[in-house]
Amino acid sequence: MSASNKLIIFDTTLRDGEQSPGASMTKDEKIRIARQLERLKVDVIEAGFAAASQGDFESIQAIAGIIKDATVCSLSRANDRDIARAAEALAPAERKRIHTFIATSPLHMEKKLRMTPDQVFEQAKQAVRFARNFTDDVEFSPEDGSRSDVDFLCRVIEAVIAEGATTINFADTVGYGVPELYGTMLRTLRERIPNSDKAVWSVHCHNDLGMAVANSLAGVMIGGARQIECTINGLGERAGNTALEEVVMAIKTRRDYFNFDLGIDISQIVATSRLVSQITGFAVQPNKAVVGANAFAHASGIHQDGVLKARDTYEIMRAEDVGWAANKIVLGKLSGRNAFKQRLEELGISLESEAEVNAAFARFKELADRKSEIFDEDIMALVADEAQSQGNEYYQFVSLSQQSETGEKPRANVVFSIDGKESRCAGEGNGPVDAIVNAIESKTASGAELLLFSVNAITTGTQSQGEVTMRLSKAGRIVNGVGADLDIVVASAKAYLSALNKLHSKTEKLNPQL
Amino acid sequence: MSASNKLIIFDTTLRDGEQSPGASMTKDEKIRIARQLERLKVDVIEAGFAAASQGDFESIQAIAGIIKDATVCSLSRANDRDIARAAEALAPAERKRIHTFIATSPLHMEKKLRMTPDQVFEQAKQAVRFARNFTDDVEFSPEDGSRSDVDFLCRVIEAVIAEGATTINFADTVGYGVPELYGTMLRTLRERIPNSDKAVWSVHCHNDLGMAVANSLAGVMIGGARQIECTINGLGERAGNTALEEVVMAIKTRRDYFNFDLGIDISQIVATSRLVSQITGFAVQPNKAVVGANAFAHASGIHQDGVLKARDTYEIMRAEDVGWAANKIVLGKLSGRNAFKQRLEELGISLESEAEVNAAFARFKELADRKSEIFDEDIMALVADEAQSQGNEYYQFVSLSQQSETGEKPRANVVFSIDGKESRCAGEGNGPVDAIVNAIESKTASGAELLLFSVNAITTGTQSQGEVTMRLSKAGRIVNGVGADLDIVVASAKAYLSALNKLHSKTEKLNPQL
Repeated sequence: MSASNKLIIFDTTLRDGEQSPGASMTKDEKIRIARQLERLKVDVIEAGFAAASQGDFESIQAIAGIIKDATVCSLSRANDRDIARAAEALAPAERKRIHTFIATSPLHMEKKLRMTPDQVFEQAKQAVRFARNFTDDVEFSPEDGSRSDVDFLCRVIEAVIAEGATTINFADTVGYGVPELYGTMLRTLRERIPNSDKAVWSVHCHNDLGMAVANSLAGVMIGGARQIECTINGLGERAGNTALEEVVMAIKTRRDYFNFDLGIDISQIVATSRLVSQITGFAVQPNKAVVGANAFAHASGIHQDGVLKARDTYEIMRAEDVGWAANKIVLGKLSGRNAFKQRLEELGISLESEAEVNAAFARFKELADRKSEIFDEDIMALVADEAQSQGNEYYQFVSLSQQSETGEKPRANVVFSIDGKESRCAGEGNGPVDAIVNAIESKTASGAELLLFSVNAITTGTQSQGEVTMRLSKAGRIVNGVGADLDIVVASAKAYLSALNKLHSKTEKLNPQL
Repeated sequence: MSASNKLIIFDTTLRDGEQSPGASMTKDEKIRIARQLERLKVDVIEAGFAAASQGDFESIQAIAGIIKDATVCSLSRANDRDIARAAEALAPAERKRIHTFIATSPLHMEKKLRMTPDQVFEQAKQAVRFARNFTDDVEFSPEDGSRSDVDFLCRVIEAVIAEGATTINFADTVGYGVPELYGTMLRTLRERIPNSDKAVWSVHCHNDLGMAVANSLAGVMIGGARQIECTINGLGERAGNTALEEVVMAIKTRRDYFNFDLGIDISQIVATSRLVSQITGFAVQPNKAVVGANAFAHASGIHQDGVLKARDTYEIMRAEDVGWAANKIVLGKLSGRNAFKQRLEELGISLESEAEVNAAFARFKELADRKSEIFDEDIMALVADEAQSQGNEYYQFVSLSQQSETGEKPRANVVFSIDGKESRCAGEGNGPVDAIVNAIESKTASGAELLLFSVNAITTGTQSQGEVTMRLSKAGRIVNGVGADLDIVVASAKAYLSALNKLHSKTEKLNPQL
């Protein structure tokens, strides 16, 4: 097996994925996802964009200090300040990569950058040269590459490779690619650029026309790329990025055609998908490949018959190989603190202090009193919920009561704390959730607009906890609040307060896109 | 513009899409979708599989009598009984197509059909010959075609074209295809089969590896196919079928490359997506291409700047072209019956009798009393809801009251009718929804298992109605119940009763798959 048969999987869930409206994550959430990505054995973790905000900087720094197996990467625009900031955040990493980018398409250079091609060329060169002072692993992306002029791209890329760029990422920023064209353009670049063999070539595709996976693979097969940039659940702006689980399973399932090796531990795919969905509040639709609830279901009569007779008549992948399993009862009300702590470790959740473990365990016992079977998903939700109520949140849920009756206006009373001080309020609405929002708003007066409301059961059965996502918009900022509880009205109150907390944190942030 | 530049769009939402677990639809629901598909100007509507059940037969017959612009199609296995049944159901259609199929892969022939290749060959021929007695528009599909032996496929397809098959549909039944291989195999078939030019070639792809759209388009560009089979929202078993909205927008957006004409009215795409999602209870994830809530959203700072400077820096399609619009207030509490009726017509909803219009209008006034702004989505939900309470449902919601308070067990009282007789019940649970389910179960004792519970707001804002989907499983049958209300607890009760009604209807049905 030659080294060139290995494809590098570069996960950008924490950077490009986070740019989805409302998907912004806290440092702790990002660390949990980074740990899970390491367990999934991705090769590179793009942990954020250090210059975007203080929060991004700290998240990258924390992840750089924790992750051992994967390379940790920060995005940066093509300027010294951004690059120095990325280098500083990455300092603790065992393996670090600086990923710098600048737009190269005529449209982007003229309308967005307001720079001439010569200026862009010089800035790209200088950026890579400067980045090489901090690490010998430097990636360069021509933003909107697929809509750029080939001659100009050749000139820029040859120069940045000469300056020491070790990975060249051919970005289909707007999801405009078609497999044959995208793959062929990449091949043309590699053929025409004299020093192209000095760098690993990478693909970065968006799914606006439903072809991100196929474009990525055409970049590999036709274009000779050896790195694929992707996100869990295809998270990302607009229609999202190439879905890691799809591109990985295509390569594994059709190894007869692709003939590449991957480092990925596919048994971690479903757990990773759930963690990302739970943290970001982005539900996965049932008819989503690999990680959707129906991806392996066979409802039809003839199919079931076929499946019974020989499973491979209708299944080209095995559900259990990617981590699907019947819901397992992992713990019950008699489980002790040690069993609970051990399960947390197995799930890759490390709480920072014993006090936090104790608090989480107390919540677990409380849940186990109400719910006889506790699944992994419940524990994950409980910890996510716990993380929001560490006492450092501005708004915190305490309790509520509500009632509704056909023909009368639903009413709710909510108790929550504002900066540690308990507040009681009451409200009416069209339904219990509306009544709760009105009650909370009577105290907070956020004036935020509710853009999206969704509830999903965490496991099957009526005893399942409901996970509520509320997306609020205020003055151009969009945040997702997530809350889980056996009672979806309580979960809704938690989700609303969680979203208000995110609006309350004033973090301004830049989100560049590739 | 030559005729060969036109691509035929064959929609199978009502057949292959309906085979998703729980997506089964009533006759009225199928008629509403068929009407919307006609408005979308699809060329062929596969309305069902006539021999699958009496319900399927009646749905196809009703659609055949209503649809004027599109060809109406029924699937049938390759036997005389199925084909005669399809022909009977299609009798009222102006343009009718019989679509017959048989598996041709070694695995399917041996393990599922238990037939020799020679037997399959004979049966395929006879089926097409028999179907030609009823219509000169006959489609033949070799099931699991992409995993079939090329020599055998050539032999079968040449024979069925000689018998009069006018469309040959190369099915990638299990979603195993890779664009280059799938397209090349199709081209090989067309090159090797002497009479291949006597038929239109078609693609039918599944999305198990995330490549259904790219495979379909490779079938067109490399393979020479001129018909694409697809479903709205990519609905379908497992990871679903090629999504109509994605493949259509890829062809439209990259006309420079594809250079094909389509009959589709893309301004109807979003309305069609919502209707299908609302009826089937299959939510569309936010990061879904074209029809996802985020498909056209730009949250990031740099992007917004780019978009402000020139929209095409990050948008390759225009949201309004596919029917996205800011929620429009279409009606209010002062709107009269005529305005309401006219809006129904504009939405393509035709109620059968004046009594039904009156009932729907009464509901509309009731909703308008509680909700100041009535959107198209509200009207669609209201009619869907109304359709379930026409008095012909076994279980019908009447009213409920419920209360919960932190620290106490939530309680609910539900009034509903069973076969016209009012029933009162009470229950407790972990949350209000659990309490309602327990209350209803205390009378119905269905013992069904809840597989999935989700709530989505129909429009933005806290005044939005919530649409609840509950998927129940009992003795191997899976059904989705859907309910909408301003109060999500009421919507949950309606959804649960709706699912119980579907379980109550004993319809057994065969679901073949391509």
